Amino acid sequence: MKRALGIDFGGTSVKFGVVEGKEVIDHADSIDTQEFTSRKELILEIEHRIKTIRRQHPDLVAVGVGVPGFVDFSTGTIANLTNVAGWQNVPLKEILEKKIGLPVVVENDANAMAYAEWKLGAGKGYEHLIALTLGTGVGGGIIANNQMIRGANSGAGELGQTSINYRERVGAYGNPGALEDYIGNREIAQEAIRFYKNHGINKTAAELTPADLSKLAEMNDQISLEVWGWVTDKLACALMNCCYLLNPEAIIIGGGIAKAGNLILEPLREKLKKSLSPTFIDDLKILPAHFGNEAGMIGCAHLAMEEAE
Amino acid sequence: MKRALGIDFGGTSVKFGVVEGKEVIDHADSIDTQEFTSRKELILEIEHRIKTIRRQHPDLVAVGVGVPGFVDFSTGTIANLTNVAGWQNVPLKEILEKKIGLPVVVENDANAMAYAEWKLGAGKGYEHLIALTLGTGVGGGIIANNQMIRGANSGAGELGQTSINYRERVGAYGNPGALEDYIGNREIAQEAIRFYKNHGINKTAAELTPADLSKLAEMNDQISLEVWGWVTDKLACALMNCCYLLNPEAIIIGGGIAKAGNLILEPLREKLKKSLSPTFIDDLKILPAHFGNEAGMIGCAHLAMEEAE
Repeated sequence: MKRALGIDFGGTSVKFGVVEGKEVIDHADSIDTQEFTSRKELILEIEHRIKTIRRQHPDLVAVGVGVPGFVDFSTGTIANLTNVAGWQNVPLKEILEKKIGLPVVVENDANAMAYAEWKLGAGKGYEHLIALTLGTGVGGGIIANNQMIRGANSGAGELGQTSINYRERVGAYGNPGALEDYIGNREIAQEAIRFYKNHGINKTAAELTPADLSKLAEMNDQISLEVWGWVTDKLACALMNCCYLLNPEAIIIGGGIAKAGNLILEPLREKLKKSLSPTFIDDLKILPAHFGNEAGMIGCAHLAMEEAE
Repeated sequence: MKRALGIDFGGTSVKFGVVEGKEVIDHADSIDTQEFTSRKELILEIEHRIKTIRRQHPDLVAVGVGVPGFVDFSTGTIANLTNVAGWQNVPLKEILEKKIGLPVVVENDANAMAYAEWKLGAGKGYEHLIALTLGTGVGGGIIANNQMIRGANSGAGELGQTSINYRERVGAYGNPGALEDYIGNREIAQEAIRFYKNHGINKTAAELTPADLSKLAEMNDQISLEVWGWVTDKLACALMNCCYLLNPEAIIIGGGIAKAGNLILEPLREKLKKSLSPTFIDDLKILPAHFGNEAGMIGCAHLAMEEAE
């Protein structure tokens, strides 16, 4: 079976994994990005690590890099990384291919996750699906007509930037009421602090991560259930919009919050049922993602293997 | 050049036109649907008219029907017509093909309009576009990867049902804050009545159609300009969502309101520029539709010609 290197470029680290089929067979390496003061140094270090990993895995056929931001998939040029400074207009594919002599693809991390779920995970066999990751931010990827939908500049799938209220305060790009500004992990914690305070309980953001809120809900803590109700209201509206626009067969939910499982999947279905006509809801599957944190790495590696064919 | 019959199935009439290239070369016939008490009678009359038209146009290769509602494009079965009672689960393609012996396609009218604009009109040459019609309702159609996007049950493109405010009152399908419930023609008129009343002026809905409001705005009537500002705020939010999800190259706007032209196109661009990151707005074209009322008829006829090939 073919193997490719998947690289997960995050806000604080760059992780390397050798991917074969549905597995990361070797968590090969990791870089702490904080240690690098310039983009150029960081890219040099990435090249160095790739070369080291290739010595241990000479059968690698390609390299796939997943990045948290806007990237033109056709050229592999990063337009902008949302939470990483200094990464505008970086032709990463071109730079890496020259140095390492293997095909390289660069893809938005949420698209890579969607690709992994569609080709190998919970979305296998569907021709039309929406995949989303819920974490610090909210990312998404779209499959329609059995193809990845990237749009004009590979920007498609930015579910977290879509609005659920035109009257709300504006977000990172001037967009009012962006989903991410309601249900990003930090925003949920802030909202949860208010819910508990209303009940005379003081808690900190550190005590109210999605994982904490899930545990509380499992213990039938009513306030945490109210918080989850608040979260799923927001998410249901954004997903309703996706359904009316794209009529998917399945919605696949991954990322940290997704660990809340039926705390969010069941209420989401109920809320969508109330707001979608039968054409859109009757056959709709709402599914937890198959892959966890490795989804992006696996998706990128497979996109790279396809490129290498 | 090939010719097909396009049928525009509306809320109050069924219109027939012979289509060749970009033209309706013969506005062949029209039925007043109010005269028919049963669906069966109306379908018989449609068959009868088609046969009559074929005698005059023996070279017709196919028939395309555009309907205002949900239809499964692959089978040509109407699931439901939004404003026409008694049209649930009607296999119209099958019924008509049996009787008239020509290939028949049945398509949602907004999808048909999008198809016409993409293949022959303002959207020609684009691989990724959103087309919308603004009228009594708000319809839409999506092209991505140079293909029509219909989704699982051909429901995709229902832009008018997407929400711009999760907190607003629910619409036809239980969906809160649906775009159509803000900027359908009737809703604009109601809002305009309020704007004028706030300035001490009493006007009726009949005096405040989009055409009236356009004329007033052209005469620099400040209140009508406020109304258009209110309309474009709502539309900009829904289109922003489409852009973040689909990253189109072009947005094409047709229907009655579109006649307001630069009263809406320019403000829309300004508002989108404020709320979209450069990846989405820099290359985006916002264009008036090429076709008017005939868009659906022409689109259906061309879809039918493709089917007949």
